[in-house]
Amino acid sequence: MNADPATPLYLALAERLAGLAASGSLRPGARLPSVRALSEQHGVSISTAVQAYRTLEDRGVIEARPKSGFFVRRPRSLPPVPAATRPPARAVAVETNAIADAVLDAAGDPACISFGAATASEDLYAVERVRRAIARSAQRHANSLGVYATAPGIAPLRQAISRRALDLGCNLDHRNIVVTNGCMEAITLCLRAVTQPGDVIAIESPTYFGFLRAMQALGLRAVEIPMQPGAGLSLEALEVALDTQPIKAVVAVPTLSNPLGAIMPVASKKRLAELLGVRGIPLIEDVICNDLAPTEEDRRAVRSFDRSGNVMICGSFGKTLAPGLRGIGWVEAGRWSAQVANFKRALSGGGSAVIEWAVADLLEQGGYEQSLRQLRRCFADQTHIARQIIAAAFPPGSRATDPAGGFILWVELPRSVDAVALYQRCIEQNIVIVPGTLFTTSTRYRNCLRLNVGGRWTAEREEALHAVGRIATQLAG
Amino acid sequence: MNADPATPLYLALAERLAGLAASGSLRPGARLPSVRALSEQHGVSISTAVQAYRTLEDRGVIEARPKSGFFVRRPRSLPPVPAATRPPARAVAVETNAIADAVLDAAGDPACISFGAATASEDLYAVERVRRAIARSAQRHANSLGVYATAPGIAPLRQAISRRALDLGCNLDHRNIVVTNGCMEAITLCLRAVTQPGDVIAIESPTYFGFLRAMQALGLRAVEIPMQPGAGLSLEALEVALDTQPIKAVVAVPTLSNPLGAIMPVASKKRLAELLGVRGIPLIEDVICNDLAPTEEDRRAVRSFDRSGNVMICGSFGKTLAPGLRGIGWVEAGRWSAQVANFKRALSGGGSAVIEWAVADLLEQGGYEQSLRQLRRCFADQTHIARQIIAAAFPPGSRATDPAGGFILWVELPRSVDAVALYQRCIEQNIVIVPGTLFTTSTRYRNCLRLNVGGRWTAEREEALHAVGRIATQLAG
Repeated sequence: MNADPATPLYLALAERLAGLAASGSLRPGARLPSVRALSEQHGVSISTAVQAYRTLEDRGVIEARPKSGFFVRRPRSLPPVPAATRPPARAVAVETNAIADAVLDAAGDPACISFGAATASEDLYAVERVRRAIARSAQRHANSLGVYATAPGIAPLRQAISRRALDLGCNLDHRNIVVTNGCMEAITLCLRAVTQPGDVIAIESPTYFGFLRAMQALGLRAVEIPMQPGAGLSLEALEVALDTQPIKAVVAVPTLSNPLGAIMPVASKKRLAELLGVRGIPLIEDVICNDLAPTEEDRRAVRSFDRSGNVMICGSFGKTLAPGLRGIGWVEAGRWSAQVANFKRALSGGGSAVIEWAVADLLEQGGYEQSLRQLRRCFADQTHIARQIIAAAFPPGSRATDPAGGFILWVELPRSVDAVALYQRCIEQNIVIVPGTLFTTSTRYRNCLRLNVGGRWTAEREEALHAVGRIATQLAG
Repeated sequence: MNADPATPLYLALAERLAGLAASGSLRPGARLPSVRALSEQHGVSISTAVQAYRTLEDRGVIEARPKSGFFVRRPRSLPPVPAATRPPARAVAVETNAIADAVLDAAGDPACISFGAATASEDLYAVERVRRAIARSAQRHANSLGVYATAPGIAPLRQAISRRALDLGCNLDHRNIVVTNGCMEAITLCLRAVTQPGDVIAIESPTYFGFLRAMQALGLRAVEIPMQPGAGLSLEALEVALDTQPIKAVVAVPTLSNPLGAIMPVASKKRLAELLGVRGIPLIEDVICNDLAPTEEDRRAVRSFDRSGNVMICGSFGKTLAPGLRGIGWVEAGRWSAQVANFKRALSGGGSAVIEWAVADLLEQGGYEQSLRQLRRCFADQTHIARQIIAAAFPPGSRATDPAGGFILWVELPRSVDAVALYQRCIEQNIVIVPGTLFTTSTRYRNCLRLNVGGRWTAEREEALHAVGRIATQLAG
């Protein structure tokens, strides 16, 4: 088989069969060879053939019919995509919903099937590689246990981050990079550097609720900018807001926004850098998902177009290396670099050098690129299946985003469905979804929900997603 | 020999000889047995005897005279202790000295002999035990790499911290403990919970410069409270300040303060809890050094006397487990617990669960108590030798603290000596001291310096301390 030698045989075989199904060479409803026949045809073991079929079953490409064998599943229709969002134009004090904490606690409850927190299944990550890197780091850099880890973090990690940033089109001087306690600390250090309590910040609408929580804690006000599910931030709306409101900074996720999964076209990214640069209004750019975008162009950061030190770029490794490494974040704060470094040093100090060495090591290993390719593929598969289920099982009139990467879907239900009620009905069945109201300072998105479809994709999870659709259909009544 | 079975033989022998010297059984100037004779007398190997003599030499108990053998050193006098401090009574905006960053960078420069940053030599810590704990944690808790670490931190660590806090006389509910990015983040979260920019905070004078940096970053004002080198915070002066100024919180290190090394008597700790409790003014209590204090009574926290949730207690493990674990801190914020947990979650999120598991493991091991006993002994020895050198080599009229634990000395030079000039002259010789001006918002302590004497105690370091004394003597002119 003509595949990446690092791909397991069963996966290569499954992908080949999936390709045949996608191209129509294997027609919907067609019966597949028996496991034994498949094993003989492709010169693989019986267990490899079984694993290939199971993988295709899990992905919804084929189905097993009891006592009949395996069949190509009939393709399902896909849901339409939501229209652009239309948040209110005025700035408001940020107050997060009381329901947010309950939702987030439930999302981490192992007793639930969670479409909650935006973290993917550990199975998809090279956890063993990460474990070995930490053990090795504790061995090789045991001396780092004997000295204070100080902000801004160890130089080799900052150098590795700077090298990785080349893939986003960015030339970052590693001396200006500050290692932080996750991407959230990076963002809040940036906000602190350029705002005072009461200031107005422009954000995406809908936006990541973590940003809202941080803004509330810092006493900031928000003005929400409309988003196109396909193309991200509306620059026209942003310009109007910049011209009419005292906006002190913009916080955005231009590549694979959360929850819409939008990627701004590269021309828009360039234009965003320019229009903020001219006005001297800083952009706080979150790039935690850029490495999950499909093409080099998609991965490009707004920062790559910035000539004035006006873009503060923030990242972490929780979506790409392993969820457990989310606590290692970083920021290069452009012309506020010295100030951000100073705040980090003054307000929280250094972290854990042993973990920093391990992450530096993991970023420099060849395996990183390969694991990214695999992640992108798995996420694309799982997202596709989930969208098919939404089309089939959710109430008529439902829409869902079609993100080019990542594992987050945003679903717009008919206006009659209250997603908070849906959340409450789902939690009774130990299923967690996140109601849309968490992603705004307004009362919008009450009929929307965010689904993390990066969890381990099992028949049980698939059934849970069908159940969400059934409950939503009842509520749409 | 009748010693702790875990003590190495050479150390037990060295301590026995040191005891004989201290009691006068071995007179000053007396000649000691040859290495061979010592080895025969005590039934130990030649190399153990050599090591015992080297240890005593390093500690300044004996001296080797070329071609003559080993002799008990003549005891040196010890310096007098400084008087109580007298900072100005008015509150001022906190601005840290420009020299602070340069000093702190130099203190971490491996090319220098540093009496700078308040971190002790890695040799004194069980770094190998820490390394093994991390490798083991990465193995046993590899699953924690696959999920987001979330604030407030893993329950087993918070439980271990709560159990350790019993030694400080505190009953802390582990559910209210928040794991932080070092003790500095704990302190700044507490400050954020109870202050607004512009508020006045009462602090010790002199105080840890890290507190001043954090207060500057948060836009706070400080009023400095006089300290007794032996007994810590002057409660009389604090009461006057509380009655006359709009103080919103007190930040203090009641046990082994930095830089004075003062321990408040237990009655004063009780009184402090009461007088702040009555007024409802929160105390932010830093307990990072409590475990280094010599007696159970000394280790007791002010929090143990608090009945009203008015004391926010903050700690970390950088002084006790290993300097490299400084990045793991914690806080139990009394009646502000929910607010502090919320700020932590909103502003920086979770850290690294693998490291949290390792620290939980280390705290529960029996070895922790034993390593604390060893640390206390080593610090006491090194502090004693350093004070002897100060008495012998520093300009007449110099005073030095006599801390009951820890490894920090505060030296008051004659008023004619400018410690910033001394710092600059020392750095030319690759020796780092910290000028007293870093420990205040005023212009006081210009003739003072802080010495970290926890570094690896070598002949070179001893000579460096003599050199500081010589330069100071020249400057005293």
